[in-house]
Formats: sequence, C-alpha cells, structure tokens
Amino acid sequence: MAVITAVETVDIRFPTSLSLDGSDAMNTDPDYSAAYVIVRTDALDGEEGHAFVFTIGRGNDVEVAAIQALARHVVGRDADELLADMGETARLLTHDSQLRWLGPEKGVMHMAIGAVLNALWDLRAKRAGKPLWLHLASMSPDEIVALLDFRYLTDVLTPADALAILRQAEWGKAERIAALLADGYPAYTTTPGWLGYSDEKLARLCREAVDEGFAQIKLKVGADLDDDLRRLAVARSNVPPGFPIAIDANQRWGVSEAISWVSALARFEPAWIEEPTSPDDILGHSAIARGISPIPVATGEHVQNRIVFKQLLQSGGMQIMQIDATRVGGVAENIMNLLLAAKFGIRVCPHAGGVGLCEAVQHLSMFDYVAVSGTLDGRMIEYVDHLHEHFVTPAVIRDGRYVAPTAPGAGTQMRAESVDMYTWQGEALAATS
Amino acid sequence: MAVITAVETVDIRFPTSLSLDGSDAMNTDPDYSAAYVIVRTDALDGEEGHAFVFTIGRGNDVEVAAIQALARHVVGRDADELLADMGETARLLTHDSQLRWLGPEKGVMHMAIGAVLNALWDLRAKRAGKPLWLHLASMSPDEIVALLDFRYLTDVLTPADALAILRQAEWGKAERIAALLADGYPAYTTTPGWLGYSDEKLARLCREAVDEGFAQIKLKVGADLDDDLRRLAVARSNVPPGFPIAIDANQRWGVSEAISWVSALARFEPAWIEEPTSPDDILGHSAIARGISPIPVATGEHVQNRIVFKQLLQSGGMQIMQIDATRVGGVAENIMNLLLAAKFGIRVCPHAGGVGLCEAVQHLSMFDYVAVSGTLDGRMIEYVDHLHEHFVTPAVIRDGRYVAPTAPGAGTQMRAESVDMYTWQGEALAATS
Repeated sequence: MAVITAVETVDIRFPTSLSLDGSDAMNTDPDYSAAYVIVRTDALDGEEGHAFVFTIGRGNDVEVAAIQALARHVVGRDADELLADMGETARLLTHDSQLRWLGPEKGVMHMAIGAVLNALWDLRAKRAGKPLWLHLASMSPDEIVALLDFRYLTDVLTPADALAILRQAEWGKAERIAALLADGYPAYTTTPGWLGYSDEKLARLCREAVDEGFAQIKLKVGADLDDDLRRLAVARSNVPPGFPIAIDANQRWGVSEAISWVSALARFEPAWIEEPTSPDDILGHSAIARGISPIPVATGEHVQNRIVFKQLLQSGGMQIMQIDATRVGGVAENIMNLLLAAKFGIRVCPHAGGVGLCEAVQHLSMFDYVAVSGTLDGRMIEYVDHLHEHFVTPAVIRDGRYVAPTAPGAGTQMRAESVDMYTWQGEALAATS
Repeated sequence: MAVITAVETVDIRFPTSLSLDGSDAMNTDPDYSAAYVIVRTDALDGEEGHAFVFTIGRGNDVEVAAIQALARHVVGRDADELLADMGETARLLTHDSQLRWLGPEKGVMHMAIGAVLNALWDLRAKRAGKPLWLHLASMSPDEIVALLDFRYLTDVLTPADALAILRQAEWGKAERIAALLADGYPAYTTTPGWLGYSDEKLARLCREAVDEGFAQIKLKVGADLDDDLRRLAVARSNVPPGFPIAIDANQRWGVSEAISWVSALARFEPAWIEEPTSPDDILGHSAIARGISPIPVATGEHVQNRIVFKQLLQSGGMQIMQIDATRVGGVAENIMNLLLAAKFGIRVCPHAGGVGLCEAVQHLSMFDYVAVSGTLDGRMIEYVDHLHEHFVTPAVIRDGRYVAPTAPGAGTQMRAESVDMYTWQGEALAATS
C-alpha cells in the first residue's frame, strides 16, 4: 500500500505583462501563472503527480488556497485505491457538500478540483509507464464510462450512448495510434494575432506561420472595428488564398453587437468567431450563431462545466468546442465533453497557450482521435510559443503539428528550477526586483 | 476627504452541523459560515461597512482569501469618491482582467466582489442615516440606472427599459413606504421542512407556522420519494385547506427524474418546486417547467449572475426568481435581477436563512416593492429562525411578516462578541474544543 503523504502547492507567476504577448480585447496585461500542485506518496518508486490551474496573475493565490482546501480528502489515503477508481475519487472531491456551495462546479473551486484530479492522473500515467493519452486509450469503453459523472446530462447523453460511441471507436484504434506516433496532431497558431503587435510584425508572423506548416492562424478582434478591418486585411494578404484565419473576441460583445461586428468582418471569411459574448450566455450564443451563419461559433475556454457545454450543443450556439485542460473538473470531465461533442458530431479544437495548456491538452485531443471521435477532420489544437521551456517534457511542434508525447505522465510537470525561480514572492518583492 | 484605511476579513463559522437544522438532500451537514469583511475609513464619523459571503463551512477560508485579493482596489482610495459612484466602483472590481479569469462573474471570486461592494453599500447607507432599502428608494431612476452593468443584457433589457420600469414605479412610492413601515413585508418559513426532523416535529412546526401568520411553508424533498409522500401528507394535514406548501429539491435531479418525481407529488399541490436540477441547466429548467405545468419552478440561490437569470426568464424555465443577497456581485447586480424580473412580470421571492441572509435580503425586496415592481402580489421572503442573535440589527418577524428595518445601514453588521466568539480557529482547535 502506498499512502498519499502530501498535497503541496506553489504559487508560480511569469511576468509576461512586461511584453505585450497575450494581450487581447479583455485581457490587457496577463501575467501567465500556475496554481501548481504536487501529490506525493510514500511509494518506493518516488513518482509524483504534478498539475496546475492556469490563471493570468492576480488571484493565483486564491486558486492555491482552493487547492489546499481539498488536501484533506486525499492526504493519508491509499494512493492505489484512489488511482484505481478515479470516478469515485472525482465524486469524493466534487460532492463535498460544503465546498460545493462555493460553486457548484464552477470557478475557483471547480478548477481546484480539476488540478488535484489531474495531478492524480499524471501520477497514474507515470505508474503505468505511458503518456496520458495512450494510457487513457488503453482503457476499455466500460472502464472509461465508469470514470464519468452523468448527473444533469442524461437528457442528452446516457451511459449507454457513451458506451456506444466508445465501442464504435474500438475499430482502427491501433492504426490511429500508429498514425499519431508517425505524424502527430494538427495545430494552429495564435502567435501572429495579439492586439499589441504592429502591422509589420503581424505580416511577418502570418508568413512564418504558413511556412511552418500550421493549419490555421487566429487574430484577436473586438477592441476597435477599424483596427480589426485593417489587421484582417494585412493577415489575408500574407497567407495563401483560402488559408483559414479564425477570429477571437474574448467575450467582448453583447448579442446584437456580435452579429453586426462579425458581419462587418465577414468578407475576410473568418474560419470561426471565438467567444463572441459571455461564456454564460447559451441563448446568446444561439442567437449569434443564427445571425452570422454560415460563420461558425467557437467557445469553451471559459465554459465552466459539462452542463453548459451540453446546452451550447443543444441550442446550436457552438459549432466548435474548445475544451481547456484546467478550466473544468479534470481529465474525466473533459472526456465527458469529448463524448458530448461526438454525440452531436461537433469538432473539438482545444484552447491552449498560456503556460502549460499545450502540454496538458494535447493528451486529451490525441485520446479523442484514438478512442472517441476517431477522426482528425477539421480538428486542430491551438499552439502559442510561450513558456514551454519550463516543462520537463515540453510540447513539441514539427511541421505545424503536435508530436505525440511518449514520456510517461500527463505532460504537466514543470522543471524544478523553473518552479523555484518563478515562485511568487508577493507584490512588494516583485516591485523591487 | 475620507480614505479607506483597511479591508479587514474574518473567517466566522457556526457549528450548526451538530444539530440537523439546515439539512437537505444535497447539504447534509452544513456549518453556517460567513466570510466576513469590514471596510474602515479615517473619517471622524467612525462608520464602518460590514458585509459577508454566506457559506456552509469548509472553503470559507478560500472565500476570505478571495475578498483579500480585492483589497488592493479599495484600500488607500477616497471613500467619498468610491461611494458616490458605486456603478464605477463595481466595474473597478468586476473588470480586474486578471481576477476576471477566475470566473468570469461566478463562484468564489464573484461572491467576494459582492461582499466588498455590499460592505461599501452598508457604509454608504449608514452615512446617509437610512436603512439600505430606504436609501436606495430615495435615489432617482437615473441614479439607479447609473449603478447598473448592462453588458450581456441589452438583448432583453436596455437602460431605456430599466428607466421606464423605475419611472413607472415613482407613482405611489410614498404610500408604499408608509405601508411597509406600518405592515412589513410577507414572509414564509422553511423551519418545518428540514429532512432531519421527525414527523411529529414536522407536524408541530407546520401548525406553529400557520399560527404565527406565515404566508407559506416549504419542505425539503428529493432524498427518498416515499419519505416525501409521507412528509407532504403530514404537512398537508397540519395546515388549513389550500395553504401554500412549497417544495425544494436542492438540485437533486436530472430533467426526466425531476418531471416524474414532481408529478408524483403533484396531488399535494405544491406552491412551487425549487431547484429541481442544476442551477446551470437553463434548458433543463425550461423542459422541467413545461413537463410539470402548472406547478411553477423557482430557483436562484445558486444562480451565479444576471446573465443566467436573463436566460432562465427568456427560456420560461423559472416562474419565481429567488435572489440571494451574497451569491452575485452585490446590491447593484441584484437590482438588475429585480429589473429583469419586473420586465418579465415574474415574482421575486428571495432565498434567505443561513446566517445573515434574512437580514441582508429584506432590504432588496423592500426596495423592489417601493421602487421597482410596486407590488407585494405573491411576493414573500424566506425566513428561518437561525442565528439572528448575532446581528446588531437582527431581522424581526411580526405576525408572519418582516418588520421594515429603520436603523441606518444594510443590516449586515454582526455583533463584535459574536465575531470574536465564532472566529474560526482551524480544524485542530475545533476538534479539541
């Protein structure tokens, strides 16, 4: 028996606001940060589980406090038992009735639950000696379904539906694993599109993205319509005809403003409009999708849980699902999101970037390809070339595609030197350093 | 000029789980708690603003950390300036782009914003020498509209709509203020209905509630159907024919289970079914409301913000709005919720109980009667007879109605002795005490 001896947390912040990388219409000065968690056991293998919640600076301490509030459920428990039944372990954390009051299943507390569960998944995959995507893909459909919480979902997805989707994907699994290991998974890049960049820099980065083999670029929009028109014209003239350019408003608009603004940009043929309005406004997304058809609506990086994803699908408000590795309640809730997308025949193109999101979410998309949707058609993972050097097994891009990770674990472990160097010392110290 | 010198926080917890008061199908052992905040200034009047987020125990420390993260926006600022433009002050806290990432506008961080704003409202009302409800009712329609954030709402409620509602309610204001001061505001009681009580206790408390003049009682349901049938029969036989009995499932069900369970209870003619499913499931509420019509659906104590309330109204999923004083972003967001209800012609029957929720929310309902809806028709505020003794100006019930408060402030200040006695000392100390 191995006992969980510690749930250690670290407040890690990178001073990214000093450049304008990562600036958009709503997030003008992010300091990419991680509320970082390490789960330790007394097992002789010395393996640890590492994971984090991505935040953009202030409030990272609040997220750390939320993760600490969960330690009581895990420390002192039998690691083998918790890891063997991750469905039950998820319920243990999600259904603490006192902590549930702080959500339920949303925001600070829900992301903290996701981080603890993801750290346990990292540990489990390391013990299995496999990268997380392959470890998940090695599980049977029944084992996968046992991970999932169907509460509030059975009006659209039952355990039987999930089993049917997973069983169908059993066919050709080995071939898809081989294809992933040979060719990787498609990626697109947001690197050219931040609001803070000059037109010259935008043009150069567009050309580079095409040369590097990315499947799509994405531009931030929504701060100023004239700027958006000019920047989209610059982008269009620096990529080949028909090359996909997505646009991203980061929740800037109300319903009618979204429809009129996107319509004004329609002649640049955006591949999708991302986060046109509040992530909470399901009916708003639906109205926008109808108003700007055939331009598809993409959203998800701020979608709080599977229940909101369910409704975005039911209402026709979302044509592309953008799961995020650290927004919801961990790996299993994201598997549920993948199954919901499969049920509705919707593409999943994950949100990534920030710090560590590329490293984490690639496992989920690769699992989706192998064991859920069975297809790469129209699928791609966001990529931003930031902060990968801080990870033990950084995401690797080759010819515009994510190389399938082969190292055991979930990819979410930072280098010890980086953890030490970027541990937050408080505002006073930061100001003098 | 008065400068804000401190935002002090206290983690206050009452050991209510030692009795079974407050037990329901989802919350089996609540320790009613307050993440408490005191705003101090250097003004000679010595007035302070007091407010809190209500929680049910564990995680109250996380909520306290979230309030502390907001102090930087307030401490050192000119109190007169912040209090004079509470609309701008709300935007200052809500639109901190880094903290916004942790929501946006939901859960731990959003409730913390609400607490800081509510403390400022308490201070403002004290300075004005009026109870909050009357202070708000003294503002002009234009001043009220200037408090409000219409982002994501203008598809159903514009500033012009809000002005029209408020201007209409200018007629008869003085008479309604006089009526409130004379007769108070209707109340209903949940005291009989907790799951942990025996049938004998339930019967006795039902008879007492009727004798005391309450307008309605409410029973918790959803743990066991046979128990619910038995308990509803006991309740029905201990109140006069036609007396309103509401039922409350505390989010226990999925859509189809809610419809079948409520249908099985329909012969007891429930006045409403409260929280039949996840507060996030707008389309689910809509399906349930259609499936159990004419029994109305009530919800709101866990509705995270005005954007979700908007959709519950748009979709027909909610026939009674149950605002909560500490769930959303403070007084002004709740005024927006009242205006949304008025726009749709929906009754508002606030959630209360816990600790301090009665004290706080009565001001919002009384403001609604005087200055928004202009009616008491079908309106009542929940009342539970718990923990009122800890407040400087406790809520007072007379003949089953809330007596209109006349003391200056928002009613949210606890007695100093109670704050001292129930300041949380950590789990280790609690276990030994």
